[in-house]
Amino acid sequence: MSTPESLALRLFDKHAASLRAARAACLHRGYFSLFQETPDQHPGGEAAREAASGAFKAQLGRPFELDQPGTLDRVGEEVSPYTCEPLGIDYPRADLDALFAAAHRALPAWAAASPNARLGVCMEIVDRLYAQVFLGAQAVMHTAGQGALMSYAGSGTNALDRGVEALVYAQAAMKDVPPEALWERRFGSTTLRLRKRYRLVPRGVAVCFACATFPTWNAYPAMLASLATGNAVIVKPHPTAILPMALAVRTCREVLAEAGFSPDLVTLCCDTNAEPVGKRLVKHSQAAIIDFTGSARFGAWVEQNAAPALCFTETSGVNTVVVESVEALEPVVRSLATTMSLFSAQMCTSPQNVYVPRDGIRCGGARIGPDEFGAALAEAMGSIATDERRAGQIMATIQSQGTLALVDEVTDLGQRRGRVLRESAAYRHCEFPNARTRTPLLVGVDAGARDLYGEERFGPIGFVITAADRLDALAQATSDARQGGAITAFVYSTDPAYLERAELGFSASGAQLTCNLTGPMPLNFAAAYSDYHVTGLNPAGNATLTDLAFVASRFRITQVRAPEPK
Amino acid sequence: MSTPESLALRLFDKHAASLRAARAACLHRGYFSLFQETPDQHPGGEAAREAASGAFKAQLGRPFELDQPGTLDRVGEEVSPYTCEPLGIDYPRADLDALFAAAHRALPAWAAASPNARLGVCMEIVDRLYAQVFLGAQAVMHTAGQGALMSYAGSGTNALDRGVEALVYAQAAMKDVPPEALWERRFGSTTLRLRKRYRLVPRGVAVCFACATFPTWNAYPAMLASLATGNAVIVKPHPTAILPMALAVRTCREVLAEAGFSPDLVTLCCDTNAEPVGKRLVKHSQAAIIDFTGSARFGAWVEQNAAPALCFTETSGVNTVVVESVEALEPVVRSLATTMSLFSAQMCTSPQNVYVPRDGIRCGGARIGPDEFGAALAEAMGSIATDERRAGQIMATIQSQGTLALVDEVTDLGQRRGRVLRESAAYRHCEFPNARTRTPLLVGVDAGARDLYGEERFGPIGFVITAADRLDALAQATSDARQGGAITAFVYSTDPAYLERAELGFSASGAQLTCNLTGPMPLNFAAAYSDYHVTGLNPAGNATLTDLAFVASRFRITQVRAPEPK
Repeated sequence: MSTPESLALRLFDKHAASLRAARAACLHRGYFSLFQETPDQHPGGEAAREAASGAFKAQLGRPFELDQPGTLDRVGEEVSPYTCEPLGIDYPRADLDALFAAAHRALPAWAAASPNARLGVCMEIVDRLYAQVFLGAQAVMHTAGQGALMSYAGSGTNALDRGVEALVYAQAAMKDVPPEALWERRFGSTTLRLRKRYRLVPRGVAVCFACATFPTWNAYPAMLASLATGNAVIVKPHPTAILPMALAVRTCREVLAEAGFSPDLVTLCCDTNAEPVGKRLVKHSQAAIIDFTGSARFGAWVEQNAAPALCFTETSGVNTVVVESVEALEPVVRSLATTMSLFSAQMCTSPQNVYVPRDGIRCGGARIGPDEFGAALAEAMGSIATDERRAGQIMATIQSQGTLALVDEVTDLGQRRGRVLRESAAYRHCEFPNARTRTPLLVGVDAGARDLYGEERFGPIGFVITAADRLDALAQATSDARQGGAITAFVYSTDPAYLERAELGFSASGAQLTCNLTGPMPLNFAAAYSDYHVTGLNPAGNATLTDLAFVASRFRITQVRAPEPK
Repeated sequence: MSTPESLALRLFDKHAASLRAARAACLHRGYFSLFQETPDQHPGGEAAREAASGAFKAQLGRPFELDQPGTLDRVGEEVSPYTCEPLGIDYPRADLDALFAAAHRALPAWAAASPNARLGVCMEIVDRLYAQVFLGAQAVMHTAGQGALMSYAGSGTNALDRGVEALVYAQAAMKDVPPEALWERRFGSTTLRLRKRYRLVPRGVAVCFACATFPTWNAYPAMLASLATGNAVIVKPHPTAILPMALAVRTCREVLAEAGFSPDLVTLCCDTNAEPVGKRLVKHSQAAIIDFTGSARFGAWVEQNAAPALCFTETSGVNTVVVESVEALEPVVRSLATTMSLFSAQMCTSPQNVYVPRDGIRCGGARIGPDEFGAALAEAMGSIATDERRAGQIMATIQSQGTLALVDEVTDLGQRRGRVLRESAAYRHCEFPNARTRTPLLVGVDAGARDLYGEERFGPIGFVITAADRLDALAQATSDARQGGAITAFVYSTDPAYLERAELGFSASGAQLTCNLTGPMPLNFAAAYSDYHVTGLNPAGNATLTDLAFVASRFRITQVRAPEPK
């Protein structure tokens, strides 16, 4: 007869080679993916894409079926940024205590399963999410507002790779503890032999917050790291982007149940903007782990209030660019314009502040002044905005109505405190004429306007900042990172000494630095298995995807020892 | 010319084989030590012991020489529990901000050193502490009040082994991050090659609190884990047990300076009972890591208030024994009496509550009732107390005057609420006639007196508790651990099903279980490289000696990437 353990170990065998390859990738950190990263290569082919499209349309206007405990009533207020119409989907709103209680009932059998069994189930969840990645991509498009390609790759395959990466680290940390040992020592004339057995014990119930603009990318790794180490997970999506996480939760529950474990190891906890439950979840006496992705303000509250629960955060920050010297300006400006336009800069890695020395960027024997540079960057942004096909692909939509007000506010401030180098405006999306869109606002300022750009302005808002000189540019940029938090930083310089200084400065400020990158890759692209995401050294978050610290404390070690006869 | 890096790498080479052997030991978790665990085997021989004795006597009544920054004045109020005379040693009392500032000046060079260089320096510190272990033992005896053997082995070699163990895990966690990678991926028709370099960045300044009764055992691992990962350490000893940590700090500073690094990477922060600085240290804006060993009450405050600093705690708890069935009573009682007398039960692993079923302990065909068991345990304690030579060796002294009052208070409560099975009394130490001593108090109670034994009663205080039946005994013991915190637990049973139930129960409660152990080893002995100390699953602390979680978050990872030509 098949037990859950034996079924799950069969899943482990099925995925063992993938895990081995992924572990090797994490150690050499070269390029690796378990998945086809472009939609046309997906093994399901065009049929899978069409089926997903049909399934998504069929879901619109209907209750989302999720058979989980403790349902009080149903909520749902998602609006597609592409159609600006409500999705009309409602989800169970659960009694918090009932979710924790159900998780606790489910925990013992899951905790007792072997690490490999749990890894097998987790890899099967990943596999299943990949099989339905097109449906997930539709969900991400029409809640987070990402473009089709980013919804597939960034929120699909890349997010799944980051999940597998977390599993790989969880596996390594768990493997570091042997199941048993024989300990033998002389005490005087006696030799004592002790048989010791070590047991990995989960913390308990983890709460995973998913954000509105990139829900799956941080949530998959957090959920999988907690599950693999034996914990249960309550997923708390942002009320405006529930569907991607609801799909993921349903898949987790299906795979767990098929393997003979309780589906209540993973549940969905929905709320509304009017009645948020986030703080109650964090302060719940049974919350053992909090994974949070979202606003810096709530993230800071979580960091201060999570104890005794563990807490892993990624919030946001002020990502900076320093342009000191270039061999050619055009490729730099093109890359910057594209990256600052990408998903309308609604990524935690999007650059916001571009520093230029007052006496200009050295380029060959010439100098390009801040005004000339600002004009070139504005023009490059314009050429994206006016290319109807590229505009939609690159900028996609604005997730939150609130972002439009912020863009207007900063435009106003920019006009008064600096110069608006390029106004933000709606652009016409070629596929979705009602899409909520805005081209990037670009404001030119001097260092005196620090209150304008010293914190994150979430959305399509960029600054070209005139620094006193090239050292001041670096000093300001690294100070932004240290004080306002930053995940990424970018420097353009042909001077090796300057690059070294930048490397030291941004390392000390905890921003991951990219130097002199141009070309087709978005500057802020973070590769699973290779790029460490978030350092924990500044206010942009305390957890890294993925290092051992992200997983090693999600479980604990208990032991029993007893004399063993010869 | 020798640079600090090259000097330190030479130290690494010197100790590389030891680190390799220690890493292997952590993986197989059999017996291992780098040191001679009995004083007569120490390579320094009798001469080293005599020199230490002379050095200790020469230190009495004099200022402790420690040339560190920020000294405001000098303090010192240590009293030897063996002579009950003040040691007459004073130490620098430092301005907190000056210590943090000095640490920050010292940090960049230390952070820039390679992991192996730092490990080499740390291993040399360990080596140097071993060379002067006899002096350290004198210091522990006359502050913590431990016996001579425990001061040498428990606070000397075993503490150093735990320190090496922490280094081994730090090394493993740091090795998991490669220094660099080449990442190559096609984007459309272009192949992008990125050279990536990864840098390990310390958190900053760690604060390490050492406790009064066992100062070195937790402090060495914490200090070494922080140092190896690139941090500076401010050591905050208990005001009644400064000398052991002052010696350690001086040694760290000497080795650091000899290797060309700033000695201010390790400083001593002394205070007095009247003017404690603990909370100011924890809340200091520049404190990045807090390691705390001490009272449960202050430990709980540290856990709640340390954020944003990382915090690792070991406090204390209610360690329990369940005696369900035995093959022979006498060896069990002898082991329990010895362990409950050991260092007058002033160890975080000392058992306090012994549960016995009301209908008796099964022994062959007979039953031994709680009264008979209590009498036997009291008698075995008495035979230690009345053997003048063993009494001093086993019970040593009482560290704090306050413990005597607690013993009197619980005696009084015991007389009113239960029965005093054995009164506590001073015993005459054969070498130190003025020593502060007390034999263990043993109180027999029913479960109704939970307020008496449900929390830790620190010192030579034990309870024999009559449980309703054998399942109730286990239920109460595991509940003590869960609610009051516990590090160790002990069960005696000849019934495999009962042992399995105990294993599950104590694992869920987070107490490390020892089954059916008798013989020469103290029941609560925790072996470096083999026994995981503290689970983090109950209030007795949140950190384990040593697992990956103890080290992996003490450093962070930053990276820089740039295009690399073919």
